Formats: sequence, structure tokens, C-alpha cells
Amino acid sequence: MYEVEVKVAADLAAVAERLDELSATQTGDVVQVDTYYDAPHREFAETDEALRVRRETRDGETAARITYKGPLVEAESKTREEYETAVGDGETADTIFERLGFEPAATVRKDRRFYRYDGYTVTLDAVEGVGEFVEVETETDESGVEAAREGAFAVLRELGLDPENQTRTSYLGMLLENA
Amino acid sequence: MYEVEVKVAADLAAVAERLDELSATQTGDVVQVDTYYDAPHREFAETDEALRVRRETRDGETAARITYKGPLVEAESKTREEYETAVGDGETADTIFERLGFEPAATVRKDRRFYRYDGYTVTLDAVEGVGEFVEVETETDESGVEAAREGAFAVLRELGLDPENQTRTSYLGMLLENA
Repeated sequence: MYEVEVKVAADLAAVAERLDELSATQTGDVVQVDTYYDAPHREFAETDEALRVRRETRDGETAARITYKGPLVEAESKTREEYETAVGDGETADTIFERLGFEPAATVRKDRRFYRYDGYTVTLDAVEGVGEFVEVETETDESGVEAAREGAFAVLRELGLDPENQTRTSYLGMLLENA
Repeated sequence: MYEVEVKVAADLAAVAERLDELSATQTGDVVQVDTYYDAPHREFAETDEALRVRRETRDGETAARITYKGPLVEAESKTREEYETAVGDGETADTIFERLGFEPAATVRKDRRFYRYDGYTVTLDAVEGVGEFVEVETETDESGVEAAREGAFAVLRELGLDPENQTRTSYLGMLLENA
């Protein structure tokens, strides 16, 4: 399974208004606090991998999960393999990775508002210390990557955004650049 | 939190009979299938650490968890730091560790029957390809390790077992020795 995701900087208030006009379905609000880890045996910045422990709070309930992101398989749309599973206790997951020699590299905090529109998930992200962004994403198998990317571009245009402005830098990357 | 655990080879049928005589409380049966990983950057056999993904089946339901075990802090009773958390999906946890460069080293399968007796958990283990063992264990803070170990020895004696016969080798270690 591949995650196809296109992201552009945007004024969230204007995009939210446009989504209302398009009758997109708002599907929820969450707060995500993501701890990214450095590996003891690889330079993730060079191998283009990421290991993350995420705490997500929705309706007052916090859940944690661990995620591994592999290197880009399709650079244009930031497509990469992703493996994620819930964990019972985020602090214990943090401790296990730290005992194994992984070190917390940075923490990304963001408020996210999700919409469904035309088969895509549209996410309005306010990222602490970084800025405001819109992500348009979907999942596909390998053969559907190109079509999914074109569809994501079309959604961006409908939202009054220019796919040419897409940012391929992760929030983690932006945060580290700002540091 | 420290896990104090004493283990001896035993005839499980005889020990089960003795536990019944002592009116110990039988608290459940499980099947555990444990995958142990080798690290890409450390020799766990030398650092005396372990990383495990466990599948446990109880009453037909299977749950998975990940566990890190640190080096021994008290050799006599095999006391070590242990961090464990449930994971939503064991296969995904396996894949995350494999993508990070950890490699499956061995799989330990065992049937376990648990009892509570005198503040301790007494476990009757039938370990595939290894043999039959009784473990007596409890958790304590650092200051209680010595008393907890003496208490575990007393429980073993009540079960007709000799603490002098304690085995400090893990089932993983025994399995690898037999290989």
C-alpha cells in the first residue's frame, strides 16, 4: 500500500471556506504530538526513513502509535511505504526505542482538521513553529500512484491552490530548518 | 520496576498436583509464540538485552505486544529491567523492526499455565523443543529485590523443588543451545 500525499502552504481559513462551498464532509479534529527518532546505526536524513511515536488526541482521548516510513518510491508525490500500528502505551514505546539506542530528534505538534472530498482526505494543518498547510492524500497500490497524484492535483485546484506550490519537505524537515 | 524470577526444570504434572494440595489459584492458560530479534548495531548476546514480539492466545483471542529486556541488574535471581506495551498488530510491529534492520533470530513457542500463590505468580511452562519448567516470579522496586528472591525460593521449596537447581538460561538461550 502506498500513501500518495501532496502538500501546499495555504491560508487555512480561506481553504475551510472553499471546502464548505464544495460541501466537503468534515470528519474530525485532532491534536498530534509526534516524536521522531534518530537511529543508532543509520543516518535517517540520508536513508530517507523515519521512525515516529505519535500521540493523537481526539475528543479528549489520547491514543499512541508507532510508524516507520520508508524511502520515497515516487518523488513527485512523496509516495513512500508506511507501516503503522497502535501501541497501548506511548511512553513505554518511547522507552523501548530509547533503550535500543534510538534518540528523540524532534517533536512536531499540530492541530489537524480532516475532510473527505472526492475520494481524498483533505487535511488542514496548523503546525506549531512552522505554519499552515493543506494536505491532499489517498492510498493506492503501486499501479495507481500516477492517477492518484493527478487526482490530488485536481482537488488542490478546486480548493484555489496551485499544485506547482507543493512542498516536499516534511513538517519535521521544516521544523529542523527553522531551528 | 524489577521482575524477580526464579526458574527450575520440573515435572509439570507433579508440580500441578502439589499446587492443588496447597490450594493455589489457577489463573489461566495461554499459548505464547515469541519472536526474538537481533539488532543491527549491537550483539544482544553480549549486551545481554532482548527485543521480542509476542503473540499470546488466551480463550481463542490472540494479542500482540513488544518487549525490551535490559541487562541483568541482579544475577542471582535473573532480575532485569523490562519494558512492554501492547501493539495493535503484531505483523506490523515485526515489519517495523525488520525495516529498521532488526532480524528475527529465533521463535520460542510454549504452553503456559498460571497460578497465584503466596503473592507470587507460579507458571508451568511446556516449551517446544526445550522441556518443562516452573517459574516463580513477582515484581518489586529495587529495594525489595533480595526479599522477593528469598520468597521465591521458599515457594519453590513448598512445591517440592530445589532452588539450587535454578536455571538462569532463558528459553531462547536453551533453544539456541539445542539448535
